[in-house]
Amino acid sequence: MTQSTKKILSALDLKRFKFSPPLFLSLLLFVIIVIGTLLLKLPVSTKHPISWLDALFLSTSASTVTGLSPFDTGQTFTFFGQIVLMLLIQVGGIGIMAFAVFFVILLGKKVSIRQRQLMQEALNVPSIGGVIRLVSWILIFSFVIELIGTFFLAFRFVPEFGWGKGLYYGLFHSISGFNQAGFSLFPGNMSRYLGDPIVNLTMIMMITLGGIGFTVLAELLSTHRYRKLSLHAQVMITGTLIINAVAVLAIFIIEYANSNTLGPLSLGDKFWGAFFQGISPRTAGLTTIDPSGLSQASLLLTMLMMFIGAGSTSTSGGIKLTTFMIIIAQVFTFLKGRREVVINKRTVNHQVIVRAVSIISISVIVVLLAVFLLCLSEQQPFVVILFEVISAFGTAGESIGATAHLSAFGKIVIMCVMFFGKVGPLTLAFSVTKRSHVDIRYPDGEIYTG
Amino acid sequence: MTQSTKKILSALDLKRFKFSPPLFLSLLLFVIIVIGTLLLKLPVSTKHPISWLDALFLSTSASTVTGLSPFDTGQTFTFFGQIVLMLLIQVGGIGIMAFAVFFVILLGKKVSIRQRQLMQEALNVPSIGGVIRLVSWILIFSFVIELIGTFFLAFRFVPEFGWGKGLYYGLFHSISGFNQAGFSLFPGNMSRYLGDPIVNLTMIMMITLGGIGFTVLAELLSTHRYRKLSLHAQVMITGTLIINAVAVLAIFIIEYANSNTLGPLSLGDKFWGAFFQGISPRTAGLTTIDPSGLSQASLLLTMLMMFIGAGSTSTSGGIKLTTFMIIIAQVFTFLKGRREVVINKRTVNHQVIVRAVSIISISVIVVLLAVFLLCLSEQQPFVVILFEVISAFGTAGESIGATAHLSAFGKIVIMCVMFFGKVGPLTLAFSVTKRSHVDIRYPDGEIYTG
Ligand SMILES: [K+]
Ligand SMILES: [K+]
Repeated sequence: MTQSTKKILSALDLKRFKFSPPLFLSLLLFVIIVIGTLLLKLPVSTKHPISWLDALFLSTSASTVTGLSPFDTGQTFTFFGQIVLMLLIQVGGIGIMAFAVFFVILLGKKVSIRQRQLMQEALNVPSIGGVIRLVSWILIFSFVIELIGTFFLAFRFVPEFGWGKGLYYGLFHSISGFNQAGFSLFPGNMSRYLGDPIVNLTMIMMITLGGIGFTVLAELLSTHRYRKLSLHAQVMITGTLIINAVAVLAIFIIEYANSNTLGPLSLGDKFWGAFFQGISPRTAGLTTIDPSGLSQASLLLTMLMMFIGAGSTSTSGGIKLTTFMIIIAQVFTFLKGRREVVINKRTVNHQVIVRAVSIISISVIVVLLAVFLLCLSEQQPFVVILFEVISAFGTAGESIGATAHLSAFGKIVIMCVMFFGKVGPLTLAFSVTKRSHVDIRYPDGEIYTG
Repeated sequence: MTQSTKKILSALDLKRFKFSPPLFLSLLLFVIIVIGTLLLKLPVSTKHPISWLDALFLSTSASTVTGLSPFDTGQTFTFFGQIVLMLLIQVGGIGIMAFAVFFVILLGKKVSIRQRQLMQEALNVPSIGGVIRLVSWILIFSFVIELIGTFFLAFRFVPEFGWGKGLYYGLFHSISGFNQAGFSLFPGNMSRYLGDPIVNLTMIMMITLGGIGFTVLAELLSTHRYRKLSLHAQVMITGTLIINAVAVLAIFIIEYANSNTLGPLSLGDKFWGAFFQGISPRTAGLTTIDPSGLSQASLLLTMLMMFIGAGSTSTSGGIKLTTFMIIIAQVFTFLKGRREVVINKRTVNHQVIVRAVSIISISVIVVLLAVFLLCLSEQQPFVVILFEVISAFGTAGESIGATAHLSAFGKIVIMCVMFFGKVGPLTLAFSVTKRSHVDIRYPDGEIYTG
């Protein structure tokens, strides 16, 4: 810790508050959203006036890197407004994540070694010494990746729009992709580049790098041998490959003859369309085919992907891929009649499983509650509402039509879900199991399941 | 064990097979379904010929006590056919449950004390000595309850239909209610008795007694003091009261002004309609208001109830109420930062929680897979398909229109889901965690969630 950060700390006088990192992150995100709302409401931000509620909605959507919007963002926002959106995405995405890690270090001075270890475990940082390196690395690495993305996208956008606009479009979509924001400046999202290899490969690369989580990226820079990676990195890499491959193949087969999506396309474009729609919805939410044209089977698959989300310590929402994989591993362990959950010759601690169960359960409750409320307030088919809520929870940002027609109450519900999807699972992952204060050990009760 | 059962056993020569109770129960259910199919396909069973597939579907629906049917059962089946249905319900309901308990006793002679204890734990029988008593008690008690139900229903049905038909209708609906079968002989299910206190109260009493589980009923006969009951019985009673009260109130409020359901009714009828629709769907599936008229919010609530189901060692399907309550308790424990799940001053063993997580996870996977397949094969709105699959899984039997229009493939899928819903969670509850054969204790791996 440098002298200046110490000064900042003592100026903030954190000791006065009963300070908890999850609360701080939630407050931070809230402040970002409020500032964003004020900026987006400025007359200079939009080509025609938008309501306070819409400004708040857009600010929330950008800061939580979701991408849901009741109107076409490219057409509504001025250049200034678009820059505000881009900054909100960057701050809400990489910024929040870096801050989370940073504050663990600051807090580290004020708590016991044991607590620090637990918090670092919760924040998914492998070792104490590596934290400072990780924070600076997150910021630098992100900017470099985003510039590389801009570089590649420029090959397509500069010839089309000229140097200024081309580079700017490259930067915006590179940031939107890496931060999993789902915002595009084009009408119809990225659909005009459905069959374009450069845009497809660059965007999928940005989405995948941003989605796998910073700790995994850090590990991959230090070693390329699978066996040397942490269990977390191994599960993330294997899991990402499997789930992406399955989803792309499934979308390709299901939508092959669907006249609203892949049906009318050439075989090559069919592949690119399935490729993008298979990988993007888990968190990025950018689209090259209109999701409202998807068949119900593909919608179900897409909702499942949005719910799962990408990796821990990525900018994404959702329950996270590892949370999902741990439950699957627990089920297999149970079916085999084993006690210990073992993945790649590593035991998964019981408390990790309990945490995963709790994250999923609470997330399901939040999603069902929001769907219930929207069923009462909106005149939309059930699947459209369900899709919208899961998209908001996973901060995915795809919509099959609900966003544009939401009532004021409906917008507030979706904003709450986006906020929860962004900080909820993170907060739960932070929470540290205390040793029971009560020393009473109650006898086991008989209770039956199934 | 009597000499005769020993003779039956040695005749069956069970030692020859690698014999497992869940496999046996599944086979038994399968045999019942096949016999039922043959009987229902007889020309004497139906007023007009039905296909083999429909006979199989109806036999599965009755034996798994679901109640889904592609046609009006009262109009299609002759008196003989209706008696077959009633017997299938009785054998598939109470019969299967009694057999499950019975076979644990028979098996008890051939396995170690430890294994016997584990199986009894799995089958939810409180003590070794109580098993024989429990089995005979289940059968006698059920018949007595069903006769009492018939007696009360006769007060309404005999004046309306005369002695013969009135008593027969009383018996049929009493059996259908107590076994949670959902079959009614009236067109529009029980809707003609929507506001009838005798029919409502009798049916809800039958549904509740049949749904709470035989071990709880046995305990209630031996003690009336809440504190002396097992944790299981306490959770079942409290849980049933809470979930029923919440559901009835919610349905009443949501549907109050819905012109397709409670809207046109008097205040009294509104209450009875909400009362029945709040309690029945958890497993019985009998209806007094047409579920296809329900608002989407009520449909969501109904689907949740059908998925949860009634009690362990009841005839119902679904994940079971205790399974649901255990997960809720685990979530609260996690949020409080505690390690041990404590309910009513009793600790819930970790293996019980793992079992509950596994049952729910596998059930969700089965439901999603079936919804996925039906999305591909059927031309129905998503919510109609989802409702149908969850109804089949919970062996609830309510439908908002899919059953009548299912393709042959769709019928096969729904049959599989009904079969799984009936024996799946039971089988998983049977399964006993072995001590790891491998002595290797792997080191804990780092893996992050949320
Ligand atoms: K997104
Ligand atoms: K039923």
